[in-house]
Amino acid sequence: MTPTLRLGIAGLGTVGVGVLRIVENQAALLSARTGRAISVSAVSARSRGKDRGVDLSGYAWEDDPVALARRDDVDVFVELMGGADGPAKAATEAALAAGKHVVTANKAMLALHGQALAEAAEAAGVALRFEAAVAGGIPCVKALTEGLAGNAITRVSGVMNGTCNYILTRMESSGLPYAEVFKEADALGYLEADPTLDVGGIDAGHKLAILAAIAFGTQVDFEGVQLQGIQQVSIDDIHRARDMGYRIKLLGEARATPAGIEQSMRPTLVPADSPLGQLEGGTNMVVIEGDAVGQIVLRGAGAGEGPTASAVMGDVADIARGLILPPFGQPAATLTKPQRANAATECAHYLRLTLRDEPGALARVATVLGQSGISIDRMRQYDHPGDDAPVLIVTHPCAPADLAAALRGVTATGVVSGEPVALQIQTP
Amino acid sequence: MTPTLRLGIAGLGTVGVGVLRIVENQAALLSARTGRAISVSAVSARSRGKDRGVDLSGYAWEDDPVALARRDDVDVFVELMGGADGPAKAATEAALAAGKHVVTANKAMLALHGQALAEAAEAAGVALRFEAAVAGGIPCVKALTEGLAGNAITRVSGVMNGTCNYILTRMESSGLPYAEVFKEADALGYLEADPTLDVGGIDAGHKLAILAAIAFGTQVDFEGVQLQGIQQVSIDDIHRARDMGYRIKLLGEARATPAGIEQSMRPTLVPADSPLGQLEGGTNMVVIEGDAVGQIVLRGAGAGEGPTASAVMGDVADIARGLILPPFGQPAATLTKPQRANAATECAHYLRLTLRDEPGALARVATVLGQSGISIDRMRQYDHPGDDAPVLIVTHPCAPADLAAALRGVTATGVVSGEPVALQIQTP
Repeated sequence: MTPTLRLGIAGLGTVGVGVLRIVENQAALLSARTGRAISVSAVSARSRGKDRGVDLSGYAWEDDPVALARRDDVDVFVELMGGADGPAKAATEAALAAGKHVVTANKAMLALHGQALAEAAEAAGVALRFEAAVAGGIPCVKALTEGLAGNAITRVSGVMNGTCNYILTRMESSGLPYAEVFKEADALGYLEADPTLDVGGIDAGHKLAILAAIAFGTQVDFEGVQLQGIQQVSIDDIHRARDMGYRIKLLGEARATPAGIEQSMRPTLVPADSPLGQLEGGTNMVVIEGDAVGQIVLRGAGAGEGPTASAVMGDVADIARGLILPPFGQPAATLTKPQRANAATECAHYLRLTLRDEPGALARVATVLGQSGISIDRMRQYDHPGDDAPVLIVTHPCAPADLAAALRGVTATGVVSGEPVALQIQTP
Repeated sequence: MTPTLRLGIAGLGTVGVGVLRIVENQAALLSARTGRAISVSAVSARSRGKDRGVDLSGYAWEDDPVALARRDDVDVFVELMGGADGPAKAATEAALAAGKHVVTANKAMLALHGQALAEAAEAAGVALRFEAAVAGGIPCVKALTEGLAGNAITRVSGVMNGTCNYILTRMESSGLPYAEVFKEADALGYLEADPTLDVGGIDAGHKLAILAAIAFGTQVDFEGVQLQGIQQVSIDDIHRARDMGYRIKLLGEARATPAGIEQSMRPTLVPADSPLGQLEGGTNMVVIEGDAVGQIVLRGAGAGEGPTASAVMGDVADIARGLILPPFGQPAATLTKPQRANAATECAHYLRLTLRDEPGALARVATVLGQSGISIDRMRQYDHPGDDAPVLIVTHPCAPADLAAALRGVTATGVVSGEPVALQIQTP
């Protein structure tokens, strides 16, 4: 029988504890499926004494994750600390340099340093796996890299941040404003230490950039993701979207076009009765489109102990079975630098403007939009308790760049207060 | 560079032609992803002269698929002929005996002979892969076998026959009766040569049995699938289900219970606004539930040239990359004989009976159901143009076996004509 595969786990938060539980509770099943025993040799975390509800006495302890990564009794370094740089990156580099396989849930590290880490893994002839970094328990990295390898991938899209989806669906169900629901999510422990990572769309942007690299054979290009967070989405936007048959989701989209790779992550109105519109709470959805397969939709829990640990253990099982691939599906040296393209696909937009209480203000806005070639489908002015009047506009399909130019023109008129809010409406 | 991986393709129907097209058109992409060239050496089909819209002059021709499977210039035998026995099985066995990898889309062969073929493949140290056999382009075999390998799988379910789903959704949208839509589907070429394979639920049952074997580590047990086709579903059933907020789907379900493995494939009422209820036409959906990951839902095209060829090429790419696993995820010798269990989970049922025009007939039915412990949620008698009166009953949740016994009692009263139709209603 093949020798035991020995893990070293750095980071004992929710996911780390989940991995320990699976290794302990499913030993027979893992051994039946992979043909070898899987065990944990050593662990590392910030605080040794903390009660995590699991018995750590059977594992060696390391204060320093770099030391853990280099241990002779560790075959696979499981990195669950998080953070793009710092200890996570140092320990991952140390593990690869020492010829250890690495399994990580760290999207920030991969989005920013994926190319260098993939090169290091390939040079060492080891695996660097990250199913848990994207969309929790959904095996979407595997589907894209392996199952759909016969396809030219044309588009990858989806909802990949459960916290944002929780906030948006909770705003709709409770009628509470963004700030209140944000506080609730924080109290429930749903937010990252730096909440901008979640609500600013950065975390989801990291995930999208990783999938785009695999899909299009390009180097990860997080800087190329056009990012818009959900902080500007008001409860009024949610209600008005609902009245029109839409829900607002933080939707990511990466597309291969003749002009280059488009990547965007932004709040989007999607039909309420579509699969994306029906996504509730922390559920994620990844949609992959290929030239042969058409559209494949994958849905599941985007975070949490069990789902994320499941993804980690899927990667560990592959390593135990000897399935070793280049981290991004093809050799890192063959990944090209992506040509960045701005999203150019025409789509309808939802606009929210606040008009100053001046005669002719609405006419000015309509005139400027018309002169900029933006055609209006619907316009509605709401009651205004104070001096300023909210106006809602739905445009006919237009190019995002044309709309942005038009909105600069609208702002320049001086008849609107604050920044206009513009959200794309998904083409059905 | 690793030498070229050479395919021999037996069966040049829609899927075979699709595979040829991908190998020809995506050569650069396949080589970038797998690190080696992939080519087709030889092909085989029933009729050599038939115009298939592809140029076959670059490939050697074999009349006999067994000869094709044994050719020295074939590394992977791609079996796309279909049929549980006959040439498909003979050629697959010949390929494995000659030490060739096999990729197949043949669910019937795997459902009936999967254990013996897996043993042969493992003895030869080669791959036997069948992603295309289940749910077309959806990489569900891979998700279950590899991505979710860290989970004890509790349940696999879904809609796995696009033809049945087409017929059921078309009946609803057109208002046409089953017989008419069946004829349409036949004219469109959607039906197997023996249509009972589709409408009798056999094809879908084959797929479910394959997934259940992987999920539960058991030998494929197609005989253990409780089968009910869609032939009995009338346009009235569809309308009445819709009035209650349901759609009727041919739903498969395999479940691991303390009593054993339950496998069933039968028409089921599912909530119309649920993801399953919204499945249109030939789309398939596979739902996998694991103890760690929770519920993963996979959706995509269940058939057709591109999607099925995509699945075949995913398997070919894995072989090109050297990813070789036991066909059912764990060694065939460790797959246990499943203990069969009848579906025992209590659920509500939809019943359609035709009452003879006799005084007290309805009361007799209600009495017998009540005496058998079947509690009635709703009952409705419809207008009856002739002598007999259709009656619709929705039961409170009850065990399928208790219901079956009750219906035998109802039939024995002599006040109903024909067989009662009973469809389960999915628990939300």
